[in-house]
Amino acid sequence: MRIVVVGGVAAGMSAASRAQRFSPDARVVVFERGEYVSYGACGLPYVIGGEVDSFGDLVARTPEQMRARGIGVRVRHEVTGVDARAGTVTVLDRASGRTTTEPFDRLLLATGVSPVRPDWARTDLEGVHVLRDIPDGEALEASVRGARRACVVGGGYIGLELAEALRARGLSVVLLEKGPEVAGRMLDPQLQVQVRGELERGGVDVRCGVTVQGLTGRGRVTGVQTDAGLVRADLVVVAVGVKPNVDLARAAGVRLGKTGAVAVNARQETNVPGVYSAGDNTESLHRVTRRRVHIPLGLTANRMGRIAGVNMAGGDARFPGVVGTGIFRTFGLGVARTGLTQTEAQDLGLDAVSVDVTSTDHAGYHRTSRPIHVRLTAEKGSGRLLGAQLVGHNHLSVKRVDVVAALLGRRGTAQDLFDADLAYAPPFSGVWDVLLVAADRLHRLI
Amino acid sequence: MRIVVVGGVAAGMSAASRAQRFSPDARVVVFERGEYVSYGACGLPYVIGGEVDSFGDLVARTPEQMRARGIGVRVRHEVTGVDARAGTVTVLDRASGRTTTEPFDRLLLATGVSPVRPDWARTDLEGVHVLRDIPDGEALEASVRGARRACVVGGGYIGLELAEALRARGLSVVLLEKGPEVAGRMLDPQLQVQVRGELERGGVDVRCGVTVQGLTGRGRVTGVQTDAGLVRADLVVVAVGVKPNVDLARAAGVRLGKTGAVAVNARQETNVPGVYSAGDNTESLHRVTRRRVHIPLGLTANRMGRIAGVNMAGGDARFPGVVGTGIFRTFGLGVARTGLTQTEAQDLGLDAVSVDVTSTDHAGYHRTSRPIHVRLTAEKGSGRLLGAQLVGHNHLSVKRVDVVAALLGRRGTAQDLFDADLAYAPPFSGVWDVLLVAADRLHRLI
Repeated sequence: MRIVVVGGVAAGMSAASRAQRFSPDARVVVFERGEYVSYGACGLPYVIGGEVDSFGDLVARTPEQMRARGIGVRVRHEVTGVDARAGTVTVLDRASGRTTTEPFDRLLLATGVSPVRPDWARTDLEGVHVLRDIPDGEALEASVRGARRACVVGGGYIGLELAEALRARGLSVVLLEKGPEVAGRMLDPQLQVQVRGELERGGVDVRCGVTVQGLTGRGRVTGVQTDAGLVRADLVVVAVGVKPNVDLARAAGVRLGKTGAVAVNARQETNVPGVYSAGDNTESLHRVTRRRVHIPLGLTANRMGRIAGVNMAGGDARFPGVVGTGIFRTFGLGVARTGLTQTEAQDLGLDAVSVDVTSTDHAGYHRTSRPIHVRLTAEKGSGRLLGAQLVGHNHLSVKRVDVVAALLGRRGTAQDLFDADLAYAPPFSGVWDVLLVAADRLHRLI
Repeated sequence: MRIVVVGGVAAGMSAASRAQRFSPDARVVVFERGEYVSYGACGLPYVIGGEVDSFGDLVARTPEQMRARGIGVRVRHEVTGVDARAGTVTVLDRASGRTTTEPFDRLLLATGVSPVRPDWARTDLEGVHVLRDIPDGEALEASVRGARRACVVGGGYIGLELAEALRARGLSVVLLEKGPEVAGRMLDPQLQVQVRGELERGGVDVRCGVTVQGLTGRGRVTGVQTDAGLVRADLVVVAVGVKPNVDLARAAGVRLGKTGAVAVNARQETNVPGVYSAGDNTESLHRVTRRRVHIPLGLTANRMGRIAGVNMAGGDARFPGVVGTGIFRTFGLGVARTGLTQTEAQDLGLDAVSVDVTSTDHAGYHRTSRPIHVRLTAEKGSGRLLGAQLVGHNHLSVKRVDVVAALLGRRGTAQDLFDADLAYAPPFSGVWDVLLVAADRLHRLI
């Protein structure tokens, strides 16, 4: 049994490790077009910001360590073609320029996503960056040194994390967002404004509703031209979204879903026999809506990879799906969500109702208590929980989103949440944890 | 409808508020033998330690505020007798010494618990304290000023919290525990030693397996006589447990459970028609074992009170029970538990299996990451989760115990926990939250 994995980061490496462990006799080979495998891409902004010492710290396992476990790893090897019927891939050795054909019995596409680069961002100007992998990070790091004015384009996870990181490095930062507010895809409007407020308190010049038209500069970037005038900048980060890398899938005859990412079943199988897909390039099932979604995040990628690895090696594992959990920190603020926002629920035609509770994360009388805001959403009639959004001034306080995430997976109700015997002591929560307060108010509206 | 509530702290005040809200025409009267009502007793150690400014801060609502809501509150009024058949209570006005008889249609016993005082602790010596209510706290506070050497007897929640508080006040602290280890009733032995280690790092002289025999001193205490010699101390705190206040229940013909606390059904009704019981003096249903337990904690008391209040006012509410969640901080360490420990599960004859995982609370490469230990327990065969114990060096990290607590309430399995879509970003957790790592290892052993 020969298992070929295309892509050696989260999903690919999880799959390779699982397959090899499940079936030690299988021959598992990973082709990674980049230089690094098995690293935590989510940590990249924190290296820039100085909260992680070096890019090397993000690497969980080196190719040598993987090889010692019996897994073949070839870095700087790009898979450029697939012949699914013949069971072969075409592999370009980027160092030598040589191309070879490699056979497989099972193939995993774990090709990830690429940053979206609008036309204006396709430039040779120095100081213009995206941030997806370690080389991107190293290039950005080099640009940060000597830069004074940064412009971050895009108010999603990466844009927000980088805005903070660049402030921590002493740069002035302008954040441009095309939509009416930052974090627009993650939160309902009531919570978006809280995120912007924190960015502004942190010294970020946030400008929403602004469309970028082009860049200025010669050799190095000097500014960002927008429909609201020129933003001077000697460093520009483009963080306007990602798109799944599906060229190889298309070439293999693999079906894509409506989201544009690869369609798979719960075993991570594509429509082409023997070809699996996992990770950021792949759709998953949303357990609340039962629809296919494309939410590329680290844990999901790792989960899919494990499932694919077991199945490719002859086992039978199934991915139950996601519930749309996400979390980030911006300056002192923690922001988390799970399930659906009220907006998302309504857009799906659900009869949803939400409550907002502003309270404290710890006992109100305890000196460590800070404000926390919870918006909790449920379906009218059934009382089924649909989602939660949290914004907390002690960033760790929003990790309690996990309680709702766990209940969403079990189709729990607001009453189930209210009945949960949550932990209480003054340095940890109020006697009624803010989640319980929200659940109590919510189930009276159902 | 006349509703009489005996006891004006957590359960009593919750009940009174609910009853009055549910049935505004009802006449609700609360008799509290002490001076204060509606305060957070769990905050008392933190006033001593300086983390809460004053005892007054613990008061959620004053008698005046309760009266403004239409609830009669009589402080320094002790209910000394009940005639359930006649529907009357005998009330002693402690200020005037006068006794009156008051009628009721519904009666709530929310009499709480009292600190256990062993024979050696029944003394007139100054500097010997228990900590249960605000006057206890004020007396302890007065003793702390001028004291240099404290001896805390008992290694449970209160003893541990007070040991830290007294260290924070600059006292030397010896902690005596009769059992083989501190936190013995909360955790399995593997985790108990971690708690002791943290106490010792905080400068507490911990001595386990030591039995107190008596006190020395004249006027003021000078030492604690033990089977391991004399411990010099000018301040002694007795924190060896609590016992439910059930004299009134007995007098009313109310049945007690095997635990010694008042037996009730899910509506908080006792065996005597019209007489309810709620709070620390009352048993509750353990949702994991389906047995009656006596675990006096603040959230549970508040919950029971609400249920009793609704039912006394003519509604129909039911308390689903507890899962045995508890949490405390000792110095930098957070300690939490829910469900059953391995020891408890075995003692109940369950076929339990546990895994231990030591990892980091945040991404391992992130500078804020600190060690966290999780012990997760499930039932063999069924995979049903039985409990979790957490010890974390960033104390807030153990609040994730709530995820397990919520699943226990829904009879979730290790697989359910593993499948939970928990929130991940490097400043919040590893890509695989430590709970997921534990669930993964555990469900392979089932």
